[in-house]
Amino acid sequence: MTVETPHRLKSYICGEWKPGSRDGVPLRDAGTGEVIATIDASGIDMAEALAHGRAAGAALRAMTFHERAVLLKELGKALTAAKAEFHALSLATGATPRDGMVDIEGGIHTLFSYSGQGRRELPNTRTLVEGNVESLSKDGSFSAQHILTPMQGVAVHINAFNFPVWGMLEKLSPTLLAGMPAIIKPASQTAYLTELVVRRIIETGLLPEGALQLICGSTGDLLDHVTGQDVVTFTGSAHTGRMLRASKAIVENSVRFTMEADSLNSCILGPDAQPGTPEFDLFVKEIVREMTVKAGQKCTAIRRAFVPRGLEQPVIEALGAALARIGVGLPGDEAARMGALASMAQRDEVRARIKDLQADGGIVVGNPDEVRLVSGDAEKGAFLNPVVLYCDKPGSAKAVHDVEAFGPVSTIMPYDDLEEAVALTQRGKGSLAASVFTDDPAVAEAAVIGMAPYHGRILLGNRASAKSSTGHGAPLPNLVHGGPGRAGGGEEMGGIRGVKHFMQRTAVQGTPKLLSAVTGRWVPGAPVRDDIHPFRKSLAELRIGDRVVTATRTVTMDDIEHFARFTGDTFYAHLDEDAAKANPFFDGRVAHGYLIVSFAAGLFVQPDPGPVLANYGVDNLRFLTPVYPGDTLGVELTCKEINPREGAEYGEVRWDCRVTNQNGDPVALYDVLTMVARTWP
Amino acid sequence: MTVETPHRLKSYICGEWKPGSRDGVPLRDAGTGEVIATIDASGIDMAEALAHGRAAGAALRAMTFHERAVLLKELGKALTAAKAEFHALSLATGATPRDGMVDIEGGIHTLFSYSGQGRRELPNTRTLVEGNVESLSKDGSFSAQHILTPMQGVAVHINAFNFPVWGMLEKLSPTLLAGMPAIIKPASQTAYLTELVVRRIIETGLLPEGALQLICGSTGDLLDHVTGQDVVTFTGSAHTGRMLRASKAIVENSVRFTMEADSLNSCILGPDAQPGTPEFDLFVKEIVREMTVKAGQKCTAIRRAFVPRGLEQPVIEALGAALARIGVGLPGDEAARMGALASMAQRDEVRARIKDLQADGGIVVGNPDEVRLVSGDAEKGAFLNPVVLYCDKPGSAKAVHDVEAFGPVSTIMPYDDLEEAVALTQRGKGSLAASVFTDDPAVAEAAVIGMAPYHGRILLGNRASAKSSTGHGAPLPNLVHGGPGRAGGGEEMGGIRGVKHFMQRTAVQGTPKLLSAVTGRWVPGAPVRDDIHPFRKSLAELRIGDRVVTATRTVTMDDIEHFARFTGDTFYAHLDEDAAKANPFFDGRVAHGYLIVSFAAGLFVQPDPGPVLANYGVDNLRFLTPVYPGDTLGVELTCKEINPREGAEYGEVRWDCRVTNQNGDPVALYDVLTMVARTWP
Repeated sequence: MTVETPHRLKSYICGEWKPGSRDGVPLRDAGTGEVIATIDASGIDMAEALAHGRAAGAALRAMTFHERAVLLKELGKALTAAKAEFHALSLATGATPRDGMVDIEGGIHTLFSYSGQGRRELPNTRTLVEGNVESLSKDGSFSAQHILTPMQGVAVHINAFNFPVWGMLEKLSPTLLAGMPAIIKPASQTAYLTELVVRRIIETGLLPEGALQLICGSTGDLLDHVTGQDVVTFTGSAHTGRMLRASKAIVENSVRFTMEADSLNSCILGPDAQPGTPEFDLFVKEIVREMTVKAGQKCTAIRRAFVPRGLEQPVIEALGAALARIGVGLPGDEAARMGALASMAQRDEVRARIKDLQADGGIVVGNPDEVRLVSGDAEKGAFLNPVVLYCDKPGSAKAVHDVEAFGPVSTIMPYDDLEEAVALTQRGKGSLAASVFTDDPAVAEAAVIGMAPYHGRILLGNRASAKSSTGHGAPLPNLVHGGPGRAGGGEEMGGIRGVKHFMQRTAVQGTPKLLSAVTGRWVPGAPVRDDIHPFRKSLAELRIGDRVVTATRTVTMDDIEHFARFTGDTFYAHLDEDAAKANPFFDGRVAHGYLIVSFAAGLFVQPDPGPVLANYGVDNLRFLTPVYPGDTLGVELTCKEINPREGAEYGEVRWDCRVTNQNGDPVALYDVLTMVARTWP
Repeated sequence: MTVETPHRLKSYICGEWKPGSRDGVPLRDAGTGEVIATIDASGIDMAEALAHGRAAGAALRAMTFHERAVLLKELGKALTAAKAEFHALSLATGATPRDGMVDIEGGIHTLFSYSGQGRRELPNTRTLVEGNVESLSKDGSFSAQHILTPMQGVAVHINAFNFPVWGMLEKLSPTLLAGMPAIIKPASQTAYLTELVVRRIIETGLLPEGALQLICGSTGDLLDHVTGQDVVTFTGSAHTGRMLRASKAIVENSVRFTMEADSLNSCILGPDAQPGTPEFDLFVKEIVREMTVKAGQKCTAIRRAFVPRGLEQPVIEALGAALARIGVGLPGDEAARMGALASMAQRDEVRARIKDLQADGGIVVGNPDEVRLVSGDAEKGAFLNPVVLYCDKPGSAKAVHDVEAFGPVSTIMPYDDLEEAVALTQRGKGSLAASVFTDDPAVAEAAVIGMAPYHGRILLGNRASAKSSTGHGAPLPNLVHGGPGRAGGGEEMGGIRGVKHFMQRTAVQGTPKLLSAVTGRWVPGAPVRDDIHPFRKSLAELRIGDRVVTATRTVTMDDIEHFARFTGDTFYAHLDEDAAKANPFFDGRVAHGYLIVSFAAGLFVQPDPGPVLANYGVDNLRFLTPVYPGDTLGVELTCKEINPREGAEYGEVRWDCRVTNQNGDPVALYDVLTMVARTWP
């Protein structure tokens, strides 16, 4: 899309769309070279922007996880409705419609994904409880619980040019779900698309004011004002990332800093994946895809491909044939399967890096200096055809493990055995992603265990996942995205892990009574209330600590024999005294574990129709003391956690269930999970 | 302890005890001023030390978690046997025997604690599987699993002078358990005690050579050589920590850097804790303890104590009276309840910082320039009596929230309401620890939720935990130790979380077959083996994927009624057709969940004596589809995880249990946990 008068991008700061104080730098359409916008953020008070964002945190923190999850879903819906507009503008970035899907639909997907994860995996609370209660005293009077609370600053997200939409939304989703406001700073080159999406988000009115701010242009002195409650993330070149990481306020205030840098990602063709196997074809297809999607401008793209020695030629030939079919041209042209790089400067950069790589080997497919197009003008648009290099001695090579050409460029290298291939991947000094194409479980195991310490994500490709694989280059909301060393040492997403990056973990120690008050979750030893049977209470009436102490029941030998016959569970320890005695855990015939929990339910259930609708599961059931004939069981069932669902007529209630014998020894401990109506009757 | 000829400390590097090439700096007994050792590490090849350590990683990684856990226990035993020797030398650091317990017994405790946690909470494997399998395809052909593998570098631990033993062992325990080698660099002042402990560790011969190295003296150019596979931790002053964090190789290689800095830790006396309440007395006692243990030289010590306005005088009086009873003197003197600071330089430093603090208020207890002793010589030993300051306007004060006097020094400040007290704690810009003394759950909740984002640990003190509380200042192996911002932004320990700091998290994607091969854990869809009943196989024979597909059983109305009568579980949904239909989850009368799992056991159990010894529990049981009379159930039980125990005759086996109905719908999914004999018969 081009416009007659260049659009002057504005920043959204302190509740207003503000232009910079200067004219601004022109931004050009990657395919046509036409100026489509100008960008400048000078004159904006960055300290004020941070303060405005921090003030907005209170409104986000006042919402529960589920309320914030619903917000993400609503944002996702609003952006989905506007996506045609985003796609039209996306073409100007050099992205084909297919590339645009990765960025736009992919970005919106992270909103929906985090919305779903938040509602499924997080409680409907403001504070997150993590892990078990840690007992710190023998008498149970002093324990600890880890909790997570949203940090009280702003998350400053500094993003790369290649994914103006996804790059923002993959960070914004966990940030908002955690309850933290954000300031987005997109890379200038494609900031016009981010600006449009932010406009649409702000227009929804869904977000508390200040929860999302946007800087189009330089961040100025923003990073001088960050504190230990702020978070800074950076996606982009390792060079800039290092500068930011070492910047004064970040270092002095121990500001959480997450970095994702481009890396020299590897792909290995397994020794078993000879030509003619599906894995060989999948390997070639994956390299072609990684070289051409977004014209190879992906942090996760395959830069180094390792093949069993002897297979170099078949691989290069197959790649050459496949790449020859990739028409390059204007992103909006249906004949073009690959669009333009982000800018002419970016093309110059890629050509220079290819020259560096040639120190280690020669070009075997393509020619960076000769552009062949199905449409467009190579003098005006930042076009470049795919280039494959071949490096025969990767062990002694240097540039290929160190230099990244951020475009449609990959190098093929031979290896002699798998161990060498694994060692070569490690020469990248840490990468975001790798893939191994093999159908041999032993190859998969050896490769992954060897490569894992150097990689944030490893994809195993084989025939059985040919259709379902999400591909080498695709970060997913429920998987960690990031890698050690060269890749920046950061970790993003990974499901709820990614939400915790914006929260502070705190160990809270105290008595059960005080811990329960803090966490909203009943802890053994905390106060209980024994009035009416808690199964008679709806969510509106039920409180943690509501308990029933049941009558008791003596388990007889007849009960055990009857249960064995009735269920068919005739395990010897229940029926054969001598054999049971020979078992290291029993002194004689014992009751079935399932008999114990069945009798326990018989003791604790209140049978009449009421607010408790169903028992949908049991967690962490442990049988701790054997039950022998003549033992008498009793149950304490205590309301432990109450989790109303947003917009539903019922919610989950977790009960602490403690079955003891006549000596007070715990026989079975578990959590009973029920659905309980919001109101009753 | 003093010695005639100063002991020349050596470094343990590359398998040898090496002296530095220079004479070395003298280290003095804190109480007497006598020179007891000299320290120098010049001339040591630090790059070689790193390479030696990295090479040792392979031997550690070849061990399983349980093998490494056993190693920690053996180390703990060896050090316990030698502890009299450590205590004797500890006196020279200025520590009383009680202080020495915190350092020496406390340090050894982390070895035992991590040993226990490793065996209880980690599998007996080399790779750690984290979280659930993430489904990435509708047909189950492509999924993901997060794994953690030990990083392949060295953990460089740079420690503070105050805990020469604990400071080393609290970091070494999770490092070794993770499978990573370490290089320890103790602070010079008390390095002689660390050196002695390391000697005793090396002498055990328990550790693979290279797994532990020691630098007594400056690290020289060591940090110039760290890579993205190494980890650097630092405990000490914020100033030094910042310098290290911004150092070139750490920034360039995205080296994991964990920092724990001294912080301005707070303690709040709750509004309810009036004089005469147990909480008031506990508050005073805790401040006295924190001021005097290790002569207040603890990163976690209480520097700022907030009391309800009006209670300043009672608090100051109580503190004055209690502190007057604290005799200061030679650490070995039984009459001395507080020893010396680490050095004369340290005393000068503390006196200077007290002067800074006096900008905000006056001294109300003690006199830093007048030393009163029960033994020892104030001119030769680094003695200082406790000093309490009072600051009347903490809202406008600056130094008190910023300046740390690392000795027996605290400031009392009044607050008007709890919200103000919480805000004042946050003025410390991030702290390691805080405590709140209250018996009011509402105060506990409000204080903790407000303070949590700024704190790594918060202790709630009240009457019920008076005897069992582990105290404000004590980091514990199973709780996180660290704090945001000023406290360094790091996180140590926290149980198994601390082990993961030395491992790389990797998302592995692939088909069930390949994922199972990588993780050693059976994933639904991975290959199965249906030969003999898997309950007939011992650990020696059993493999993941071994499965039994059972016969089926039809559930009748009679079964349901019989089960209800037999167990007493007469919940209406099982017995009353109309009431069951009115339930949102059911179309009519349904079978009990416990009936389903009982019948399932009847189907899958092999009854004869054999290697499966007991069913000790059930995890993650979910009832997914209601079972109506006439439905026919079948079970697939598949061996999912095999966990032999070190040195035991049996181990844990986890089974995937899938109960389906006649339509193939999943009725119940859960893990069955059994104990299985190592061999049979």
